Amino acid sequence: MMSVRSVTAVVQRAITRLHVNGQSSCRRFYSAESKAIVFETNGKPLDVLKLHTFALPDLSDDTILVKFLASPINPADINQVEGVYPLKPPFQTSALSSEIPIALGGNEGVVEILEVGKKVLNFKPGDRAIMRHTVFGTWRTKAIATIDDLTKIPYPVSEISALQAATASVNPTTAYNMLREFVELKPGDWFIQTGANSGVGRAAIQLGRLWGLKSINVVRSRDNIEELRADLSSLGATKVVTDSELADKGFRKVIKDWTGSSPIKLGLNCTGGDSTTNIARQLAEGGHLITYGGMARKPVTIPVSLFIFKDIHCHGYWLSRWSDANPEAKETIVNEIFDLIRTGELKDVPVDKWVWKQNMTDAELLDTFKAGVAAYINGAQGRKQILVQE
Amino acid sequence: MMSVRSVTAVVQRAITRLHVNGQSSCRRFYSAESKAIVFETNGKPLDVLKLHTFALPDLSDDTILVKFLASPINPADINQVEGVYPLKPPFQTSALSSEIPIALGGNEGVVEILEVGKKVLNFKPGDRAIMRHTVFGTWRTKAIATIDDLTKIPYPVSEISALQAATASVNPTTAYNMLREFVELKPGDWFIQTGANSGVGRAAIQLGRLWGLKSINVVRSRDNIEELRADLSSLGATKVVTDSELADKGFRKVIKDWTGSSPIKLGLNCTGGDSTTNIARQLAEGGHLITYGGMARKPVTIPVSLFIFKDIHCHGYWLSRWSDANPEAKETIVNEIFDLIRTGELKDVPVDKWVWKQNMTDAELLDTFKAGVAAYINGAQGRKQILVQE
Repeated sequence: MMSVRSVTAVVQRAITRLHVNGQSSCRRFYSAESKAIVFETNGKPLDVLKLHTFALPDLSDDTILVKFLASPINPADINQVEGVYPLKPPFQTSALSSEIPIALGGNEGVVEILEVGKKVLNFKPGDRAIMRHTVFGTWRTKAIATIDDLTKIPYPVSEISALQAATASVNPTTAYNMLREFVELKPGDWFIQTGANSGVGRAAIQLGRLWGLKSINVVRSRDNIEELRADLSSLGATKVVTDSELADKGFRKVIKDWTGSSPIKLGLNCTGGDSTTNIARQLAEGGHLITYGGMARKPVTIPVSLFIFKDIHCHGYWLSRWSDANPEAKETIVNEIFDLIRTGELKDVPVDKWVWKQNMTDAELLDTFKAGVAAYINGAQGRKQILVQE
Repeated sequence: MMSVRSVTAVVQRAITRLHVNGQSSCRRFYSAESKAIVFETNGKPLDVLKLHTFALPDLSDDTILVKFLASPINPADINQVEGVYPLKPPFQTSALSSEIPIALGGNEGVVEILEVGKKVLNFKPGDRAIMRHTVFGTWRTKAIATIDDLTKIPYPVSEISALQAATASVNPTTAYNMLREFVELKPGDWFIQTGANSGVGRAAIQLGRLWGLKSINVVRSRDNIEELRADLSSLGATKVVTDSELADKGFRKVIKDWTGSSPIKLGLNCTGGDSTTNIARQLAEGGHLITYGGMARKPVTIPVSLFIFKDIHCHGYWLSRWSDANPEAKETIVNEIFDLIRTGELKDVPVDKWVWKQNMTDAELLDTFKAGVAAYINGAQGRKQILVQE
């Protein structure tokens, strides 16, 4: 529910704007208020997330009014709400028309440009863009952004949908860099990964296929495993194995039969726990294991002998660190990924949409979003949960 | 006990030698048989180790007859006996005058040259040397070696004792390389290590002191902890902490007070288990953790967040791999270490001597050696166990 104070603030700002700026009818068409998913304290998302309505700042000569079309619910977002993620969104009051400090949720998202300031030349209404940085707050209806906040999507909606664009910047870019930064893999070389059904995992399979790499893809045992094997194989997975198959000591021979004399030089890990230990065991001498997630909520455990006698190296990968240090390189890779999506080389991630409709009450907006969070928490069989605004 | 067959073989070889080669009285002075600690099968050292007597091959123009003066009992030696070490000594029959295939134990050792072949110019009787390669079999009285097997000790016994030389090539070289190969440490920089009371740990403390590095040294809690703190401090340890002190969450602040704004870029690990996890937590962003041993017989367990958000890198270090690839570099470093020992910069490791005397029976020789192995297994409070031959 929107508080009386918030309503008052919105009305007051609207009045001020009309009186001082003399708004055009065009600008008034888009209500300059935002409805956003926020949190006052860190905690379990279903407990602490709230809907908050606040007045956006006036459009200035070099700012841009945007509408969010699609915003994923990513692990990093959830960890931010829980307070266990190093990049923390600021808790704000006046900027969000709130007496109590609150923080905006969401990092990845696709926007449509509604209106631009006089000095903004690179964007025009109708253009679409993705967020250039993290911690912008993407679980909301609208925002005022700057040029620096946005990366334009260079293709029309007929070639790349908002849903496709919404998941283009984080997962495929992570897979792209991990496959290239640590080990030089040549066509015919193998890599192995846990959580192969994740967004990053699926992107790694497909980029691997495009680059001539072979992949061993570990997924959790499940009822519809043959369906998943077929699904990942259709993306280009060379082999799909369950964590329990991998845990069997005899399975090493099976993998040896697959790879022959070709060493497995790279492992990608987003789980932790036994599966991670087991893919490390499959690495060749001098191999590298890259951890980019911990979905099993267990640490990475490596036998001492793998370090000493097999010369295994373990690293981590955090896209945000790289993105902040290399914004131009990121833009280049994201554009390459857009092109792969457009041409159908990189297939859509399976998604569940949670739709915010124009006529929904605040309670309905919040309930819709929380249903998406609940689906995320329950695992959703590797499907990406995305907030969509009609 | 020497078997009848073995005795026969020794006698037969001795006769052959006298008849065919016409040996000098000088050569006959040194009995060309060797008593060695061997094993027929892998297993617990106290169960499987045996004393075996065999005839050495005749001295040829380019071989060298050597007597072992001092041979340590190192973790790698024990692991070889157990069969869990990747470098395995060969199981041999005729070369060791044995009908059953047997393997020689021991890798590190100091020898005195007794006699050299005509074409051997670099060594003369009375010279001392250490083993240049692993898997030579150093737990024995004598051997026939080649020039390639030996690195001469360039100082007389008055400057470097056999006991000092016996531990010069493995532990200090390991510490030397780990402090230099992974991170560029400058004077004033900190490193942290588990098992600081080990041979490598003590060498790292002292080399660190020589190079202007500061060290946080983790040891197991024990009764005489203040004695050990004083001992390691006298070597140059900046700080000595117990594993239980380190495990206390509040201890992070203590370490922060010590190091100030100086990042801990390097961790050295020879234990595994909790201590290893806890030193990894103290590393600065981008830090490196090097595992060279697993004395706690537990794996290396690292929280996922340390990889992703702190960009920690984990590697292993195995001196044998490096030595085999870089024999010249190793000789240079070992000579530098000999020089540090000679000048007193690198202090002796505390040792327990297990002495083989000339008049001992085979049973006494074996019992003496096994007593050393038992002391090793019991931990010996960080003291090195060394077989010495009078």
